[in-house]
Amino acid sequence: MRGLIYVGPGLRSWAPKPDPTIQDPTDVVVRIDSSTICGTHLHILKGDVPEVEPGTILGHEAVAAVLEIGVGVTALAPDDRVLVSCITSCGRCAFCREGHYGLCKGGGGWIFGHLIDGLQAEFARVPFADTSVYKVPEELTDEQVLFLADILPTAFEVGVLNGGVKPGDTVAVVGAGPIGLAAILTAKLYTPSRIVAIDLADARLARALEFGADDAVNNGRDDPVEAIRTLTDGRGVDVAMEAVGVPETFELCTELIRPGGRVANIGVHGHPASLHLERLWTRDVTVTTGLVDTTTTPTLLRLIAEGRLDATAFATHRFPLADTMAAYDTFAAPEETGALKVVLEAEAAVEPRAITEEPVGAIA
Amino acid sequence: MRGLIYVGPGLRSWAPKPDPTIQDPTDVVVRIDSSTICGTHLHILKGDVPEVEPGTILGHEAVAAVLEIGVGVTALAPDDRVLVSCITSCGRCAFCREGHYGLCKGGGGWIFGHLIDGLQAEFARVPFADTSVYKVPEELTDEQVLFLADILPTAFEVGVLNGGVKPGDTVAVVGAGPIGLAAILTAKLYTPSRIVAIDLADARLARALEFGADDAVNNGRDDPVEAIRTLTDGRGVDVAMEAVGVPETFELCTELIRPGGRVANIGVHGHPASLHLERLWTRDVTVTTGLVDTTTTPTLLRLIAEGRLDATAFATHRFPLADTMAAYDTFAAPEETGALKVVLEAEAAVEPRAITEEPVGAIA
Amino acid sequence: MRGLIYVGPGLRSWAPKPDPTIQDPTDVVVRIDSSTICGTHLHILKGDVPEVEPGTILGHEAVAAVLEIGVGVTALAPDDRVLVSCITSCGRCAFCREGHYGLCKGGGGWIFGHLIDGLQAEFARVPFADTSVYKVPEELTDEQVLFLADILPTAFEVGVLNGGVKPGDTVAVVGAGPIGLAAILTAKLYTPSRIVAIDLADARLARALEFGADDAVNNGRDDPVEAIRTLTDGRGVDVAMEAVGVPETFELCTELIRPGGRVANIGVHGHPASLHLERLWTRDVTVTTGLVDTTTTPTLLRLIAEGRLDATAFATHRFPLADTMAAYDTFAAPEETGALKVVLEAEAAVEPRAITEEPVGAIA
Amino acid sequence: MRGLIYVGPGLRSWAPKPDPTIQDPTDVVVRIDSSTICGTHLHILKGDVPEVEPGTILGHEAVAAVLEIGVGVTALAPDDRVLVSCITSCGRCAFCREGHYGLCKGGGGWIFGHLIDGLQAEFARVPFADTSVYKVPEELTDEQVLFLADILPTAFEVGVLNGGVKPGDTVAVVGAGPIGLAAILTAKLYTPSRIVAIDLADARLARALEFGADDAVNNGRDDPVEAIRTLTDGRGVDVAMEAVGVPETFELCTELIRPGGRVANIGVHGHPASLHLERLWTRDVTVTTGLVDTTTTPTLLRLIAEGRLDATAFATHRFPLADTMAAYDTFAAPEETGALKVVLEAEAAVEPRAITEEPVGAIA
Repeated sequence: MRGLIYVGPGLRSWAPKPDPTIQDPTDVVVRIDSSTICGTHLHILKGDVPEVEPGTILGHEAVAAVLEIGVGVTALAPDDRVLVSCITSCGRCAFCREGHYGLCKGGGGWIFGHLIDGLQAEFARVPFADTSVYKVPEELTDEQVLFLADILPTAFEVGVLNGGVKPGDTVAVVGAGPIGLAAILTAKLYTPSRIVAIDLADARLARALEFGADDAVNNGRDDPVEAIRTLTDGRGVDVAMEAVGVPETFELCTELIRPGGRVANIGVHGHPASLHLERLWTRDVTVTTGLVDTTTTPTLLRLIAEGRLDATAFATHRFPLADTMAAYDTFAAPEETGALKVVLEAEAAVEPRAITEEPVGAIA
Repeated sequence: MRGLIYVGPGLRSWAPKPDPTIQDPTDVVVRIDSSTICGTHLHILKGDVPEVEPGTILGHEAVAAVLEIGVGVTALAPDDRVLVSCITSCGRCAFCREGHYGLCKGGGGWIFGHLIDGLQAEFARVPFADTSVYKVPEELTDEQVLFLADILPTAFEVGVLNGGVKPGDTVAVVGAGPIGLAAILTAKLYTPSRIVAIDLADARLARALEFGADDAVNNGRDDPVEAIRTLTDGRGVDVAMEAVGVPETFELCTELIRPGGRVANIGVHGHPASLHLERLWTRDVTVTTGLVDTTTTPTLLRLIAEGRLDATAFATHRFPLADTMAAYDTFAAPEETGALKVVLEAEAAVEPRAITEEPVGAIA
Repeated sequence: MRGLIYVGPGLRSWAPKPDPTIQDPTDVVVRIDSSTICGTHLHILKGDVPEVEPGTILGHEAVAAVLEIGVGVTALAPDDRVLVSCITSCGRCAFCREGHYGLCKGGGGWIFGHLIDGLQAEFARVPFADTSVYKVPEELTDEQVLFLADILPTAFEVGVLNGGVKPGDTVAVVGAGPIGLAAILTAKLYTPSRIVAIDLADARLARALEFGADDAVNNGRDDPVEAIRTLTDGRGVDVAMEAVGVPETFELCTELIRPGGRVANIGVHGHPASLHLERLWTRDVTVTTGLVDTTTTPTLLRLIAEGRLDATAFATHRFPLADTMAAYDTFAAPEETGALKVVLEAEAAVEPRAITEEPVGAIA
Repeated sequence: MRGLIYVGPGLRSWAPKPDPTIQDPTDVVVRIDSSTICGTHLHILKGDVPEVEPGTILGHEAVAAVLEIGVGVTALAPDDRVLVSCITSCGRCAFCREGHYGLCKGGGGWIFGHLIDGLQAEFARVPFADTSVYKVPEELTDEQVLFLADILPTAFEVGVLNGGVKPGDTVAVVGAGPIGLAAILTAKLYTPSRIVAIDLADARLARALEFGADDAVNNGRDDPVEAIRTLTDGRGVDVAMEAVGVPETFELCTELIRPGGRVANIGVHGHPASLHLERLWTRDVTVTTGLVDTTTTPTLLRLIAEGRLDATAFATHRFPLADTMAAYDTFAAPEETGALKVVLEAEAAVEPRAITEEPVGAIA
């Protein structure tokens, strides 16, 4: 089979690799029907995630069909159509037992395209399948559920739930890239009174308004602290979500919130931020960080099935799975392409193909 | 009457001031029976709290007797014995209605010895009395309840409750001064499995063990991160409380907690700390700050009345109220005196005395 | 002035009574601009609420203008436009301090038209005004906020919040009268996946669908347990709300919920129900009862102001305040009139009129 | 091997049965080191639990040693010493994923001695072992942890946690049999201000005081409602736990609680109770039922290991496992024997013995 292989910093290839097989009793092997690309992959390709070894297939989001099941698998059967998501849960460790699947110490957590081969491929081995995949209702298309594999539960759990959004709240979302948009979309499940998107790019802010923000503030042009003060009668927002990943936007969030409010960090950070305790110590502020656990995936799936949530607007481009290399080019240049999420579509269902002997070679 | 007057940076005086009178319908005037000194007063005397104007009587903790009530007071009567605490609640503003009395926008919050005359005096005016004082059961001594005026609810609300201490948790308390000791004492109400005190001074650590800590780590001598790792099988603590107020101890707390844990800041800070988001973003960490609200004062009072909580060990020294100047000297030098809290005791109940004409003058 | 007076069982009269005056320092006197009638009034008129003494003016819902304030009132001023709601909070007692205003032991709770004169009148005395009324934003009409005086917070707090409705939940509302409709309307703030209305009357079920229910089950015709089983794949609903007030509908709720679900009773009951513990003891079920506290009124007001919630559809009929007698006739016969809530509108603002000497007499 | 076999209503036998073997990949086979008897067994023996088929080995509590593991077991190894508890969790179904192991739909829940052979035997097959057993720290004796297999987590989760016991609360426990005593013991982890035990037997009440109750009320002699009123200044208790299982005691609980309080049912009920909604509808009452999930077992185990919780006082009698028949006689007559829990102790570790051919016969 073929998959999108990380060759080394700056290098990727759509190249052959042996078909996956069952290794542990709790594994299944799946055929990928749809996959997508996440911002994390751009970090990996920069070499920022050193634990990803060259030769690893990338990808941690897919809708797939079960082909083969390990002897310890009881809840799945061949031909089941499943969502394979960014987090794997062993289901046994103390963290998994508490619902902290993202912190799994039993071999799960974020492993696809990170510690084991991922899902931008024709086939994949899925460990701990019983406790890590979700059956997809027949009536839903791949595109309706694909973004449940990462971006939606991430924004919902790490942003909306950690932020404690409640009906009537005012919410600021700093950063209107895909994850910020998903935070806006899922925050609306709790009917806040007002969502303010803050970003440096007018194009992204326009998208934010389409996804449900009520106000847009360009913080390259306008003082966001002043803007929020005006919009909230001087009070500050109840919840601020950081969806960029740099110290400045995190620190901005701590300036925007009202006393008693909550800052939920969703961004992926590479540097420390300043926490202005000399100002915050009296303000009853809560700051949270977190990796997605995907505990809410069944809930979000039900909301999609019942027509309460629609994430298909994230799909801005579609590519055949075999054109994943081109899809990366499009995804990596959102300013020019307007890409939010690209959908990688396998062609009509195929049987696992024999391993081609062709060497890993074609380089991006 | 006389009270302890802030004369200016570095200067205090036990000096005369006119007796307080009812100014607003919701006021009461009280006779102070017992008062005490808080670490905040040392900050004020350094000039670190510029909004305290020279001429202000200090003090925000007292057990007192009601002498006179305003026409709008319905829940109190002359001769009632009451706890007057550090936080005043107007009971009407949005923050008070949510139980955030410490953030009161209606004229309350921390006002005693800050924005109005305080409680280290023979008499005091108490605004919003119906919603700000607590009747003291007859069978309890002043010393049993006096520390409910600040240190106990502060440690309990801002440390233990914000920290979410639960039965079986491991807890680190960084800083074993009075507030850290109160955090240890009140954390035990939730039966954590283990409390580790961390401090630079062996004398304070010895106190911490007396107040209920299970382990003591001198972080001048031993690496606290290593020590916690050993004590928790490499896991980190469930809850870390900062009770010092400098960036280093806050940052230490963020290193001590386990993934999924909580850092509760209790310390008063003058400088920003670094929040290592590059390490914390994946760790499901919650950081809280807060000013005490005193919403738990009735609960703590009941626990004291039923013999479940005893805070009298904080009282290391007693002084007549008239010797408040000497009491400050003792309190300000804990290394030599071993002082935790000093009790200022009024002599037998006296009638409000006529204003003495003597000028404010005797200087510390 | 005149008001709607309870004369005795079965008897009411629009009759004169002395103008109200300030009695306590925390009182205000208001001019009623809009009022309405609640189902409770029909119970009172049947004689079911014996503590209402003949001669009492009924009514506990109004939008009004402040005319006069007591000396202890600090947060209100003459000419303020306010919502006066069914619950009065002394703001001082232990229950009020916990947000349980409905259980107020300091002279508040449900007192209007119950223990003191109510709000279906030209003027009214409002005790504990600072902690019991809500300023109405200028841009909102009386009709937009009037139903915040009782029905909306009742359904939201006692039904939706006690029921713990969460995004994705399935919800059954048993009883589609005004309170059931308000439960449907406010449940939607949490985006449940599906709301099922259950009632004996097709007309009420049609209304339920208009207010946002997804399914309607006529339990006179269809087996509701079977219907819910079908709609939830045999699982039962996550939340069932009782909005009728008879044992049968409460018991039905306990049959509809899934293991781990919640039954929230909103109905006013006159008789005990059976709790089938022999079936429920293993099912992790939570049952709640409650009187409204109106703690959520500010939140609901903000949602209305921001256009997230619209309750004006409850206003099916309008009457001049002077025609309150006729309004009762319409409200008491919803099967014929289709009445949900009737709006009683004062004519243009008038000055308090002198007391007319005419005796209480004209009888309904 | 031999085990305690349910022969039919009224009939039990210590009789041979084939040694258990691995049937599913997620099974382990264990050697029972210690077991005990639960009140449920007396119900089973009366024929009250018809789904228990004659021939089934009873018992759902044990400390055991792993002998053999299935191919799908990853977290256990032969010779591991484990707690096998009353609840089995498949770890895969929607209920298990929410922590509702007691409601497991994947083949778990309460199965030992109910739907499959139980733990009052020399050996046992343990399904879903990875997600259902707990490793026991070496330094703890069997008797220190044995009661974690059922009675402690049941009382703690279904009583204390469902009841929401908080520091300072007043708590009534109705029924001072083993489960009521466990509720008293574990309630103390939250430092309530006062625990009142209510029972008809003075001997049980004396035990309750030993286990930590502060007051004892014999409701055969004294009016418990009056007694609670006196003890709580007319207020009622914050939390009432039902630990008997008859309608009268449940109804008593609903009379004892304060407005805003919680009734947690722990008892096993055979008949419906009356819920006096005509009185309770205004009182903000929460009633909960529940089966234990054993989600708190790791926490309770840590508390025992750290010396914060000691349940060994439940062990009133010890028997060799081979004398389980006699142990039943003792356990079934607590009035005469004073038995709370009997410990069944296997003799020194033995290898699985060959099946004896002796027929099931000796009858109790």
